[in-house]
Amino acid sequence: MSPSSPKAGGASSTPFRVGLLGHGTVGSEFAKLLAERAGEIERFNGRTPVITGVLTRTSGSFDGILADSDLLVELIGGIEPAREYLLTAMRAGKDVVSANKQLLSQHGEELFETAREHGVRLRFEAAVAGAVPVVRVLEESLSATPIERVHGIVNGTTNFILSEMTHGSSYPEALAEAQRRGFAEADPSDDVSGRDAAAKMAILARLAFGSPVHLDDVRYEGIEHLHADDLEYARELGLGLKLVGTAERRDGGLSVRVHPTFLYAGHPLASVSGPFNAVMVESATITEITMSGPGAGGRQTASAVLGDVVSVMTGGARPPAPPLALALVEDVESAFYLHLDVDDEPGVLAAVTKVLGEHGVSIKSVVQRGMGESARLVMVTHLVLDSRLRTAIERVSEFDFLRSTPRTIRVIEEEFV
Amino acid sequence: MSPSSPKAGGASSTPFRVGLLGHGTVGSEFAKLLAERAGEIERFNGRTPVITGVLTRTSGSFDGILADSDLLVELIGGIEPAREYLLTAMRAGKDVVSANKQLLSQHGEELFETAREHGVRLRFEAAVAGAVPVVRVLEESLSATPIERVHGIVNGTTNFILSEMTHGSSYPEALAEAQRRGFAEADPSDDVSGRDAAAKMAILARLAFGSPVHLDDVRYEGIEHLHADDLEYARELGLGLKLVGTAERRDGGLSVRVHPTFLYAGHPLASVSGPFNAVMVESATITEITMSGPGAGGRQTASAVLGDVVSVMTGGARPPAPPLALALVEDVESAFYLHLDVDDEPGVLAAVTKVLGEHGVSIKSVVQRGMGESARLVMVTHLVLDSRLRTAIERVSEFDFLRSTPRTIRVIEEEFV
Repeated sequence: MSPSSPKAGGASSTPFRVGLLGHGTVGSEFAKLLAERAGEIERFNGRTPVITGVLTRTSGSFDGILADSDLLVELIGGIEPAREYLLTAMRAGKDVVSANKQLLSQHGEELFETAREHGVRLRFEAAVAGAVPVVRVLEESLSATPIERVHGIVNGTTNFILSEMTHGSSYPEALAEAQRRGFAEADPSDDVSGRDAAAKMAILARLAFGSPVHLDDVRYEGIEHLHADDLEYARELGLGLKLVGTAERRDGGLSVRVHPTFLYAGHPLASVSGPFNAVMVESATITEITMSGPGAGGRQTASAVLGDVVSVMTGGARPPAPPLALALVEDVESAFYLHLDVDDEPGVLAAVTKVLGEHGVSIKSVVQRGMGESARLVMVTHLVLDSRLRTAIERVSEFDFLRSTPRTIRVIEEEFV
Repeated sequence: MSPSSPKAGGASSTPFRVGLLGHGTVGSEFAKLLAERAGEIERFNGRTPVITGVLTRTSGSFDGILADSDLLVELIGGIEPAREYLLTAMRAGKDVVSANKQLLSQHGEELFETAREHGVRLRFEAAVAGAVPVVRVLEESLSATPIERVHGIVNGTTNFILSEMTHGSSYPEALAEAQRRGFAEADPSDDVSGRDAAAKMAILARLAFGSPVHLDDVRYEGIEHLHADDLEYARELGLGLKLVGTAERRDGGLSVRVHPTFLYAGHPLASVSGPFNAVMVESATITEITMSGPGAGGRQTASAVLGDVVSVMTGGARPPAPPLALALVEDVESAFYLHLDVDDEPGVLAAVTKVLGEHGVSIKSVVQRGMGESARLVMVTHLVLDSRLRTAIERVSEFDFLRSTPRTIRVIEEEFV
């Protein structure tokens, strides 16, 4: 525990000493922002935050920085040595702030446990949705709210790519544009595979439901396989196509997953476009709350990190409660969009719907469109279990009249109308 | 200061004693929710919140309840005796939670000053946007962020009425429907006049800019004078018509105001419909963050109050910093929509635009539509000072060819395209 006092009357001229691990884009923006805002922070906290040490790849000593600081900010990323640094700092009684989603989604319980054991604070707002304060809101404002579901657009890169594709770009064009504008890395696989979003959903699920969720527990699917056709369908029907992460209570357990998803136009996440993030929290008590804003960017992330530092100075926040493990539910019901390219001959629709029906897949709407010798069948199903749909699609794939692999995308339809 | 310890290790079986002032809709929902969630709160806070006294119009003694509690929750509403109770409690060293927007927008500085002086916490999340945690986010997550502007839809009643009108209802029909569904009071004047939204914007402005803003400092305009014609225009152009509160830095000072406003379709507030609230915070550091959710409802408000209680138990939050007064700027620039019903005769448009031009009102677009003997002129201006526009409209109103009083509505246009 840092010596900062949460008591309002505790104003003092002792500086609040911040040790900084990592000095890349976010680290250097953080140092700059802290210097700019130190006076204002002093005005309402009574203490001035000061960076007393910086560890880079080539300079600084971790032990020296630790000894000279009240709080450590970890912006190195990756698992090691970030994990070891955070554990060592907490064991030495220091509060810590981290923006490290890989680490939190894979070693979160170890970090939380250590924080609890040593009575220190571990804050990580910037690890989930950049400047959008979802961690704080889940941990604190909604800590007394029984949450049913969290939906999130938590990867700005893929949301930017999908926005571009909605406006007519192909996937490679949209990806190239994202890279040109600095929204995607040279190797974008962590983003476009859905893995980055899965890590953030693991963290959100832990906060919302108190149950430990490891990155490996999250099913995810990326956007690389999406076709221009699917976006065209979305446009025609006024649907938004987004990479949506979902964490929700299901059958007494918990389901956490990330998939490309069609959203009806009125859904709070449907209007989130470009490199933005948004998180929607549902509960019978509060109905729903949605928060959105820029998901990345050095300065935005630095702002979230500084907010965490200020919250520690202010004395708020405890370590997360000990976990209450919920069973992970893998097989959940969704509505699906099915896209089949078939030979345009009599009996095809009947054959497909018969197989689907035999597997309990009930069709809500069908559009069949002739394209010369071939036809395109687009269907939307009622709610059906993943496993049932997969089996049905495997059976449908065996038909000779199929011209390409069937495609499926989840659909979230309007619930309140 | 309550004896609750913010230290993580401070678990104890001593209950956390909550005194409740007021037992109407929100008060009784709060008591119920607290009982439901007490076990879960104990799990992560180490103490169980318990209501140790309730003051109603007919039962309970304030002094007795105060003596028996660690924290007081004020849900009486109105100025007195709520003000006196809160001041007395804080002077006795108790933390307090209130949902009282009237009180905070008219006696905020006195309350904040008293909280600072006695080192206690004063929390009021439920006073602004119901379950949407804008107070917490402004006070804490964004406390280190230099905010430029806050836009808010902070009155669910008027937003519901405008949503209904967008779908074709007249104002009286929409109001009656709001009353039937419990979204509007029998006497709706506080809501439809914009006064309720003005009170909330005064509170938000204080939080965002640190400058004391009294309800009387906020210019406001309601929705009673809106015509079906205006909504028709909004529909045609894909604009949303909302009652928008704005607090922003202008010319080194601060402008706080509430007006019916046209929003372009992509604006984050344009898609907020029904009895929802939303607040958007803009800053060069974070770009923009938008939060939305239900603005009212007993259970939603009770949930925000309970969140405040938990935050006090957790040890976070200080009293607001001493004020840094900014000058209030009354006369600000906006773009306007002008609606004129005129005789359909030659020279009318020329006469109107000449007068507007003489007063520095520059026209961006005009639509003139003949309606038999009369014509409708709809114009959108470039940015122009309120005072200039008002003078110009007074001059235009003198023309004999005018068939009704000119109407003006502010417009927020897309900035990023």
